[in-house]
Amino acid sequence: MSAAQSPDASPPLLREDCDGVATLTLNRAPARNALSMALMAALQQALDGIAADPRIRVVILKGAGPAFCAGHDLKEMRADPGPAAVEAVFRACSRLMLTITRLPQPVIAQVHGIATAAGCQLVATCDLVVCAADARFATPGVHIGLFCSTPMVALSRAVGRKAALEMLLLGDPIDGPEAHRIGLVNRVVPGAELEGAVRTMAERIAAKSGRVLAIGKEAFAAQCALDLEEAYAYTAGVMTRNMMLDDAAEGIDAFLQKRAPRWSA
Amino acid sequence: MSAAQSPDASPPLLREDCDGVATLTLNRAPARNALSMALMAALQQALDGIAADPRIRVVILKGAGPAFCAGHDLKEMRADPGPAAVEAVFRACSRLMLTITRLPQPVIAQVHGIATAAGCQLVATCDLVVCAADARFATPGVHIGLFCSTPMVALSRAVGRKAALEMLLLGDPIDGPEAHRIGLVNRVVPGAELEGAVRTMAERIAAKSGRVLAIGKEAFAAQCALDLEEAYAYTAGVMTRNMMLDDAAEGIDAFLQKRAPRWSA
Amino acid sequence: MSAAQSPDASPPLLREDCDGVATLTLNRAPARNALSMALMAALQQALDGIAADPRIRVVILKGAGPAFCAGHDLKEMRADPGPAAVEAVFRACSRLMLTITRLPQPVIAQVHGIATAAGCQLVATCDLVVCAADARFATPGVHIGLFCSTPMVALSRAVGRKAALEMLLLGDPIDGPEAHRIGLVNRVVPGAELEGAVRTMAERIAAKSGRVLAIGKEAFAAQCALDLEEAYAYTAGVMTRNMMLDDAAEGIDAFLQKRAPRWSA
Repeated sequence: MSAAQSPDASPPLLREDCDGVATLTLNRAPARNALSMALMAALQQALDGIAADPRIRVVILKGAGPAFCAGHDLKEMRADPGPAAVEAVFRACSRLMLTITRLPQPVIAQVHGIATAAGCQLVATCDLVVCAADARFATPGVHIGLFCSTPMVALSRAVGRKAALEMLLLGDPIDGPEAHRIGLVNRVVPGAELEGAVRTMAERIAAKSGRVLAIGKEAFAAQCALDLEEAYAYTAGVMTRNMMLDDAAEGIDAFLQKRAPRWSA
Repeated sequence: MSAAQSPDASPPLLREDCDGVATLTLNRAPARNALSMALMAALQQALDGIAADPRIRVVILKGAGPAFCAGHDLKEMRADPGPAAVEAVFRACSRLMLTITRLPQPVIAQVHGIATAAGCQLVATCDLVVCAADARFATPGVHIGLFCSTPMVALSRAVGRKAALEMLLLGDPIDGPEAHRIGLVNRVVPGAELEGAVRTMAERIAAKSGRVLAIGKEAFAAQCALDLEEAYAYTAGVMTRNMMLDDAAEGIDAFLQKRAPRWSA
Repeated sequence: MSAAQSPDASPPLLREDCDGVATLTLNRAPARNALSMALMAALQQALDGIAADPRIRVVILKGAGPAFCAGHDLKEMRADPGPAAVEAVFRACSRLMLTITRLPQPVIAQVHGIATAAGCQLVATCDLVVCAADARFATPGVHIGLFCSTPMVALSRAVGRKAALEMLLLGDPIDGPEAHRIGLVNRVVPGAELEGAVRTMAERIAAKSGRVLAIGKEAFAAQCALDLEEAYAYTAGVMTRNMMLDDAAEGIDAFLQKRAPRWSA
């Protein structure tokens, strides 16, 4: 029986919902929230549930204990080093990252301590990132003979090429201000203010129309992959359909009438 | 009869040419230069004329009154909320943005006050941007139930993914220095120096060969969409053809002879 | 007989190997290391040799004399201005840049003085860049009627669109801190510390598994050109194959056992 199934063990993932905000906490503090297969499965299941739940407007992803996430569970991986087991880990991880990108709801990473390897990939994948001043980000696989090739997919789409290559080739950690400078995080705050800053950001997003957030997040990912003319043809259609929604009529009328909108979703 | 056609009303767009620099002024100050259909049509017509006019070397785009541009004209859009009229707005806007990108001449945005929604898209679309310290940039559609999906096309190609998503999901304004930090603007200057800074930049560009500027601007957009090897094959051909022009022979000889070049175009 | 073939002339390129680090020095100081056909051929040959030499883990590229590299050799180009000769220059240059990108070993540019036109392209193409505080970067072709269309391929993939267009359309030099701000260089150091800073960076990379560096560098370039889902499918396979290498087993075991790894390659 795995730890995740053991009745007296802590579950690998905690979820708490409050006012349209779902907070997911990676809960393997002794392992610095390493992404074991059980933790990835729990996170996948939670995200799949949230994707289908219109009551949730925004997701916060954070880590219990001293770290955000230390990447994959190397002990678990070395315990079954055959190619099938290894590939299963990277496929599960990649599916998880695609799920975050495709989730209708925006996902905010709340980062303290280290975010390394697949943990740094999670940060790069989340839509928005707020970190504590003590946060450290690294893709250190090169130190252990395992280049961070899946993390680079998210990292190289979040930051410039030279900054990404420096992290990948040297493997050294960068701090919060440097992560902010290169565009990996949106905001750096004192550790004592981290929870509050993320909560405020989440509540501001939760006050929007969930349907409109979902339209926008989907369109963002879709248009990034198109050339300029295709992207405009696609998004002109998206905005026209958006404009036909009750929430747009209500939002614009409320704005013109200088009152607060009442969203349908 | 619309304001744009009224003989005694101000035209929605002003144009002034001086020494190879065309200055286009959005001229709906009471509406903070909102992009009505009439204003978009006037801007499209002006740009189409400039595209065919080799005497113009560079374009400055600015706004009359207290703002650069507040986006689409929401009152006009709510007055005819059917899908055909709505789609016509976004198609006209997208065509305008593609026209700026494809214009042979570089376009400089001169930004003061607010540049929001499609106004921020204009900023993201122009080749170069100089803003006053008081400028504010936002894609606030999410506040009114209408996600800024067409502005995101330009925004997400000008700045990093996290910075773009923060603007799009939160809808909050950013100031000039933050816009500079994330790469949305090239330079921030005191308000009193804005006009002069843009004029100096425009004159420096107008002193180049117009034919060579056109070659470079077209090649920039074209090669961005290609993979690395294709981009090199394409641009190696572009540079070879460029080198065969009189202006390249003249420019290189002038450089080697330490004199000023005399351009043919 | 060209200078490159003359028995008593300095060779256009110097190579020195030390502890897995190959240092290539552009050696045309009187011409500010302009990329003559002879220098490009020598550099191509050196890189082709390094690509096949597993003893080399990392490459440093630097310039002799007061400059890093002033771009193409304009005197040579104007001496034979026919299209075939001109195209040969740009094809050789493009091949060189692709060779650096595809080289199994990381390449660090060590930049002092000017890096202009194709010299700036070299900087943008190298994986990592450290520059002295006195370094200056420019794509000034527009000044001489020859737009920097091949340099823009590398530049526009290293920095944001507005920063690239500003360099290309204005042609003016930027200094080290500005190059760092826009993401063109990784680190700016005092001139007296440049050699040491690059040497330290190179030694840190040379201490990794060469095979793993090669896997990572190849995967980086390959996945950049793929859409998100394809990039994950591809890199999940790359990481699985990487995990099957002796160097990954050794690296992970050494990490778990808190000892230094012993690489096979």
